[in-house]
Amino acid sequence: MGNTFGNLFRIHTYGESHGPALGVIIDGCPAGLTIDTDFIQVELDRRKPGQSKITTQRKEADEFEILSGVFEGVSTGTPISILIRNQDQKSKDYSHIADKFRPSHADYTFHAKYGVRDYRGGGRSSARETVARVAAGAIAKLLLKEHGITTSSFVSQVGSLQLTKTYTELDLTKTEDNIVRCPDAETAEAMIELIDQTRKNRDTIGGIITGVIQGVPAGLGEPVFDKLHAEIGKAMLSINAVKGFEFGSGFEGVKLNGSEHNDVFYEEDGVVKTRTNHSGGVQGGISNGQDIYFNVAFKPVATIMKDQESINTEGDSVTVSGKGRHDPCVVPRAVPIVDAMAALVIADYLLISKTNRL
Amino acid sequence: MGNTFGNLFRIHTYGESHGPALGVIIDGCPAGLTIDTDFIQVELDRRKPGQSKITTQRKEADEFEILSGVFEGVSTGTPISILIRNQDQKSKDYSHIADKFRPSHADYTFHAKYGVRDYRGGGRSSARETVARVAAGAIAKLLLKEHGITTSSFVSQVGSLQLTKTYTELDLTKTEDNIVRCPDAETAEAMIELIDQTRKNRDTIGGIITGVIQGVPAGLGEPVFDKLHAEIGKAMLSINAVKGFEFGSGFEGVKLNGSEHNDVFYEEDGVVKTRTNHSGGVQGGISNGQDIYFNVAFKPVATIMKDQESINTEGDSVTVSGKGRHDPCVVPRAVPIVDAMAALVIADYLLISKTNRL
Amino acid sequence: MGNTFGNLFRIHTYGESHGPALGVIIDGCPAGLTIDTDFIQVELDRRKPGQSKITTQRKEADEFEILSGVFEGVSTGTPISILIRNQDQKSKDYSHIADKFRPSHADYTFHAKYGVRDYRGGGRSSARETVARVAAGAIAKLLLKEHGITTSSFVSQVGSLQLTKTYTELDLTKTEDNIVRCPDAETAEAMIELIDQTRKNRDTIGGIITGVIQGVPAGLGEPVFDKLHAEIGKAMLSINAVKGFEFGSGFEGVKLNGSEHNDVFYEEDGVVKTRTNHSGGVQGGISNGQDIYFNVAFKPVATIMKDQESINTEGDSVTVSGKGRHDPCVVPRAVPIVDAMAALVIADYLLISKTNRL
Amino acid sequence: MGNTFGNLFRIHTYGESHGPALGVIIDGCPAGLTIDTDFIQVELDRRKPGQSKITTQRKEADEFEILSGVFEGVSTGTPISILIRNQDQKSKDYSHIADKFRPSHADYTFHAKYGVRDYRGGGRSSARETVARVAAGAIAKLLLKEHGITTSSFVSQVGSLQLTKTYTELDLTKTEDNIVRCPDAETAEAMIELIDQTRKNRDTIGGIITGVIQGVPAGLGEPVFDKLHAEIGKAMLSINAVKGFEFGSGFEGVKLNGSEHNDVFYEEDGVVKTRTNHSGGVQGGISNGQDIYFNVAFKPVATIMKDQESINTEGDSVTVSGKGRHDPCVVPRAVPIVDAMAALVIADYLLISKTNRL
Repeated sequence: MGNTFGNLFRIHTYGESHGPALGVIIDGCPAGLTIDTDFIQVELDRRKPGQSKITTQRKEADEFEILSGVFEGVSTGTPISILIRNQDQKSKDYSHIADKFRPSHADYTFHAKYGVRDYRGGGRSSARETVARVAAGAIAKLLLKEHGITTSSFVSQVGSLQLTKTYTELDLTKTEDNIVRCPDAETAEAMIELIDQTRKNRDTIGGIITGVIQGVPAGLGEPVFDKLHAEIGKAMLSINAVKGFEFGSGFEGVKLNGSEHNDVFYEEDGVVKTRTNHSGGVQGGISNGQDIYFNVAFKPVATIMKDQESINTEGDSVTVSGKGRHDPCVVPRAVPIVDAMAALVIADYLLISKTNRL
Repeated sequence: MGNTFGNLFRIHTYGESHGPALGVIIDGCPAGLTIDTDFIQVELDRRKPGQSKITTQRKEADEFEILSGVFEGVSTGTPISILIRNQDQKSKDYSHIADKFRPSHADYTFHAKYGVRDYRGGGRSSARETVARVAAGAIAKLLLKEHGITTSSFVSQVGSLQLTKTYTELDLTKTEDNIVRCPDAETAEAMIELIDQTRKNRDTIGGIITGVIQGVPAGLGEPVFDKLHAEIGKAMLSINAVKGFEFGSGFEGVKLNGSEHNDVFYEEDGVVKTRTNHSGGVQGGISNGQDIYFNVAFKPVATIMKDQESINTEGDSVTVSGKGRHDPCVVPRAVPIVDAMAALVIADYLLISKTNRL
Repeated sequence: MGNTFGNLFRIHTYGESHGPALGVIIDGCPAGLTIDTDFIQVELDRRKPGQSKITTQRKEADEFEILSGVFEGVSTGTPISILIRNQDQKSKDYSHIADKFRPSHADYTFHAKYGVRDYRGGGRSSARETVARVAAGAIAKLLLKEHGITTSSFVSQVGSLQLTKTYTELDLTKTEDNIVRCPDAETAEAMIELIDQTRKNRDTIGGIITGVIQGVPAGLGEPVFDKLHAEIGKAMLSINAVKGFEFGSGFEGVKLNGSEHNDVFYEEDGVVKTRTNHSGGVQGGISNGQDIYFNVAFKPVATIMKDQESINTEGDSVTVSGKGRHDPCVVPRAVPIVDAMAALVIADYLLISKTNRL
Repeated sequence: MGNTFGNLFRIHTYGESHGPALGVIIDGCPAGLTIDTDFIQVELDRRKPGQSKITTQRKEADEFEILSGVFEGVSTGTPISILIRNQDQKSKDYSHIADKFRPSHADYTFHAKYGVRDYRGGGRSSARETVARVAAGAIAKLLLKEHGITTSSFVSQVGSLQLTKTYTELDLTKTEDNIVRCPDAETAEAMIELIDQTRKNRDTIGGIITGVIQGVPAGLGEPVFDKLHAEIGKAMLSINAVKGFEFGSGFEGVKLNGSEHNDVFYEEDGVVKTRTNHSGGVQGGISNGQDIYFNVAFKPVATIMKDQESINTEGDSVTVSGKGRHDPCVVPRAVPIVDAMAALVIADYLLISKTNRL
């Protein structure tokens, strides 16, 4: 369990950070979708490490191979299997932590759960796992594009440094203009400076990504347990290092009165709209046709370039020393992952919605 | 889809607020569990309306009947079906909104999705749906009790009025001592006053519930998509009116450096512990044996006793007038629901964990 | 696990033969379907005991109540819960077998699996469980009717007495004309005589039901594991007392050469057809638009009115004496159950097929 | 849908016969299992073509690569991904059928379902798909071996030529002694002769495989829909060319009276046994500790070396000529596939059974 996501548009992933490969099977992609392989590579490149001074210097080619499910450039309805080989996996880097539990990593919990674990670079719990999500998310995005749906995520906070504009005040096409992926140039600069300073301090820092999904028709989402925002929330909380999720008015909304918070309906040119969007595009778990937007909180990366106390598998006190090449802040590289997970949820619910009515 | 929750300890619910009944099937409850029916009633009573001046005055007996799966007081391993009949369902109260879309309700989205809807009192999207969750959660709690696991939720914020103590500074056994379900007597009084004032203003207000799960052994949770906190998050986000979820350090944690945020391991009397618990008891999606704690944000109830603009199914402008008996603030009554959902997740993951190792 | 059937058109059942009730939740029924309650009762009546001299004389009213999911006579897209109360449950009849394992019943295996069991009349393993299938199947049939699909099952063999005509040589509307449910009057008479004689011998006998599904469009079914016939096969094998399933040419087909067995395609009036139908309407797991037909083998009912050797829960030798009111042959009453399961599979795959293409 | 099998021990497969590769993810394999890679190769070799004069002369190396989930020779609890590259894929062989529907193949049904299809050698509907099943089945068998459970399948019929001994009268270790995989040397010789003659006639022929599972403890299986034999039945019916499944007394059992068919319990050395085993090791859907045995009927292979009438995608009459290298009879090579599917079901239900009791 745990390596499958989605119901009808469904993915299965596998792979350890230092094993031979990672990959994903996308099952349930409708037949007849043109598979733009260049686009998949673009998405993988957005996620890949070694892109700038504020990300890990680890190099990964992240070239992919489609093993099945695509014939003459088009999806056939059968499972699309995408393989990404690992490269540059310096396993020796990790021998020093084979029997140690790194603080706030998954070392101890994997050990407690399974008794054995692949200790090389986090194994299955490595953030490298997300490469499979991004590959699958690219296919989902191609499907969404056919329906006029887009996902646009960006960095809205690093440490205490907060972007003060809301997404409606920003030009979201500018997100890729800078290495921190914040569409506001000025704030981006400050964020980059903060991350770089943190890196020089051999430390790490957290941040927030805001996600925006536009063009979703009214009627997606399932009542009760599989509410659209609940599934998006789970999707985001499943990303490594995420500690919180809120959509629409979120945590701030609790302070409002109902008379302030309610979104008034009106109709314009035959289209139902709301004057405000505290609902974040979802009411009763079902999309209402307005923009879906949400925030995802990422903790500071656990691997720091400092000595830390811990214990080993025997329970003895040990010192853990940060080595290797790690991100000082995860949010810039997590932007395409948030996008991918959002796209996967919408693609899945889009298919589900085809069966709602007689 | 959407009416099932859980994998091995799995529930299926049904029912509309003004139909004949609501109910739940609990499938996968291990055989041999003593089913304490008094306890189920206690849990249902905690959720039921009409308990105090700050909750809706609607009366519901919420008596339940077990239809299957229990023989001579013990679970048999077959599905446990629990039925709760509706009473006091004044359908006439709702005729005025049959063709109107109430602001920030699920009326429009159900209409968009299904084409038809049971407009009486919210139908399936009514908060009454949660009675089935609480009944099922009671069974889950009985199972958790056998494993020494407890869930303790309480109200930690109403509007802007915030409980300043953390859960470790509180006596969680005092939660039921007051009608707002805040274990701090002084804060509770202020919260009650705020809610009562809001009610008199014919308005509503939001709030936050903090959940605490104690006694969970290390090793529960699935890597990648079904991380323990991701499933808890989805469980909470699936509750009506929830807008956000955070666990451990949550949104505040993004401001910290890794060196501050990391939880240092140590061993005491052969038990692995952490000096801090920013991780909120979950690392890499798997429980580490420390307390699991989280916050759940609830928006203000959408039904207010004021006139509001809206549209009807024809797209015409209409006025919606709040009628009936509704909660001015949902959090006091949502406490047992948060508890129930937490218990359901842990019960499920407890069963899953039995299959992790050879 | 084990009490849910289907993927999108999905049912969850519960209930013991001598508990308060049995029931089913139908989740995933599209909104907008007119729910003909008279038809549901007709279907339940076809299954119910006490109909004739060749079925058990036990009386069950089998009146049902719809608890949810239907509003103003139409499905709303939310779960349809159907409740059937037990009546006439003479629990005393079963006290004599509380600690005995009846031969070829599920007493021992339930005991081995769960440690506890509801020994009254078979509990969950009673054929009474199928009442929930028939109720759900009636909803599925209403959905299929909208698509011009019909299911027609009939008894084609009792003991060694075999109907010599194939389904294409029979008038399937005559199945209900006699109490054994064989559309050939002459064979029916012989079957009735054989069953009645068996009953007088205080014994039981097996039989075969042939199922026919007509009007299924080409394209239903999933490649690989969820082939259409594999799911129909599982559906049938899940019915109590079933020992075998074959479709199309079945077991006899193994004797043929490929040149004899292959079904030649041709087109007539723009419709693709096959000259023979050894494939039984399914090729590569997907329907080809021809009739789907299959046979289901039922063993003789295990409860016989004779003394039999066995053991009790202590492993001691005991004698088990058949008491109560039981069917001498299960096939006449199993006809509507076969129909119901066939309808459930087709309804499910019909919904799945809506998501196959872009 | 359709490419996943199992609940807890769960596999996901992908791949077309003439694409780059086929593969499988095994999710849910317990941690700590020693993965004997030699054994996996042995199993793959048993299935692979080109083994003898009575199988296709197509050569496939069927070398596999484990991409994840195994560390230092032991399963880690994370998904085990196994990749098998295609070789010797002469795509040109298939150009002549790109727009033709071969009789009794899946060409037409895939076309009807998806609108597009990979016509090269059957694509996803090719029997080559089973290589992934066998690889996964090998892992399942390694798990079963730890629990003392074995699966032993053999050919019991080819065309009308039937093995007259039951499995209890045979030495099942001799199955691999001949190329047709029938443990009775004399019958094997006749079967080989029959298949070879059929091949020379440019035709094909069907057959039956008998499966035997020994060492299964009492208590595996789920009541109602997921009965153990129903899942085994589905597993078998999902194999290409299968037309029927029966277990225990099967279709012949319908002719018996209950007094003949019932299996009398007795206890020997503290172990519960039955004097006969018409039940085929399963009662009420749950294993009773006796041998599980069943028959699987395979139709003659659809590809014959003769000209056949058919139509093309335009509905025009065409002639289809058998080319390429195909099996004259599928059963010898299907033996390891039946074994694999049986092992997958038992492995899955073994894990499920760990959660039955408190």
